[in-house]
Amino acid sequence: MTTGSSRKPRTDALHNRRRVLDSARTIFAERGIEASMTAIARRAGVGVATLYRHFPTKSELLAEVSCGQVAECVSVIDDALADPDPWRGFTTVIEKICVMQATDRGLSAIFLEVLPDPALFEAERIRAENGFAELARRAKEAGRLRPDFVRDDLTLVMMANRGITAATEARTMAACRRLSTYLIQAFEARPGRSPLPPVPRLGPHPDLPTGH
Amino acid sequence: MTTGSSRKPRTDALHNRRRVLDSARTIFAERGIEASMTAIARRAGVGVATLYRHFPTKSELLAEVSCGQVAECVSVIDDALADPDPWRGFTTVIEKICVMQATDRGLSAIFLEVLPDPALFEAERIRAENGFAELARRAKEAGRLRPDFVRDDLTLVMMANRGITAATEARTMAACRRLSTYLIQAFEARPGRSPLPPVPRLGPHPDLPTGH
Repeated sequence: MTTGSSRKPRTDALHNRRRVLDSARTIFAERGIEASMTAIARRAGVGVATLYRHFPTKSELLAEVSCGQVAECVSVIDDALADPDPWRGFTTVIEKICVMQATDRGLSAIFLEVLPDPALFEAERIRAENGFAELARRAKEAGRLRPDFVRDDLTLVMMANRGITAATEARTMAACRRLSTYLIQAFEARPGRSPLPPVPRLGPHPDLPTGH
Repeated sequence: MTTGSSRKPRTDALHNRRRVLDSARTIFAERGIEASMTAIARRAGVGVATLYRHFPTKSELLAEVSCGQVAECVSVIDDALADPDPWRGFTTVIEKICVMQATDRGLSAIFLEVLPDPALFEAERIRAENGFAELARRAKEAGRLRPDFVRDDLTLVMMANRGITAATEARTMAACRRLSTYLIQAFEARPGRSPLPPVPRLGPHPDLPTGH
């Protein structure tokens, strides 16, 4: 039945939904996307039945969490595109994504694995990737980014960064910062750089039409 | 009973032991150290009872496989120490270890995780780490390696490299080559390099006395 009241969820239902999403994000971040619905309900302080009323499948819940994470990436990239210094914009994105990824294991999955129901955040993911490609184009045009940097190098960065795990979150974060600093210094255009071996097609997503 | 014949294993027993070790190395490489003893026996073409006669626990088998892998690393490092060009020696080790690691998931575990019975290959592992430290010292002395490169940066390289996985082994290998090329270029001493954020203590092994 589609009545007025069923379209306008009550405040506590919205509140529960918010708590479930927060809990899911935390749990996916800590344990990866294999985490169970029961664990998510427990953390949110709601019953499993309530959880399934809001999200009938884990895929739907995962997709909604992913939407939020991709939106954050898009926002980081939009800020960088607004930076008048294209190299600073480019490097800020690499640094911020490495830090986000260090605290959120779920973020790697969005870009590096095939998730269920990717259609829900596909448009935003492509927007993020195209935004990054534009940043790279501008940084090359400004002569700051090496010309042989390609789009798949961002995937390489994210794959390398997900391998970093230390005994504490603070150490992991510090190690990710050091790795991204090294990589950014390697990406910088410099005369006399040795050529790079080719990067193969990485990640689960097909090539985009624009650029490398 | 300790008789003369029990101390001199028969040829087919030695042959079986060799097959078990080869199989274990392949299976640990493909699936990581969580692989089961049953899978190892099956691949070796021996019964599970035979496998356990040679290696009463998985820890013992894993330790013996690890000994062989660490010995290979030591051999790579010894070759590099014999190279009259310290920078070429240093970079060759990084390249070779990244390639070895790309084809052998077990190798990461030796250096990045706490394995059961590490005492069996501890001396060799320390020899490898000290040999690498000596390579780094010489490459710095020659003015080719940046002075702020530290021993834990090799752990950082291995952690980053283990994050790289592509659809095929050939692609994984190519991506690891590209990553190690980027990192080597970042390690090279150059005037005007920005400072690096500090690297935290990484990996499970305590600091060695011989410093960076």
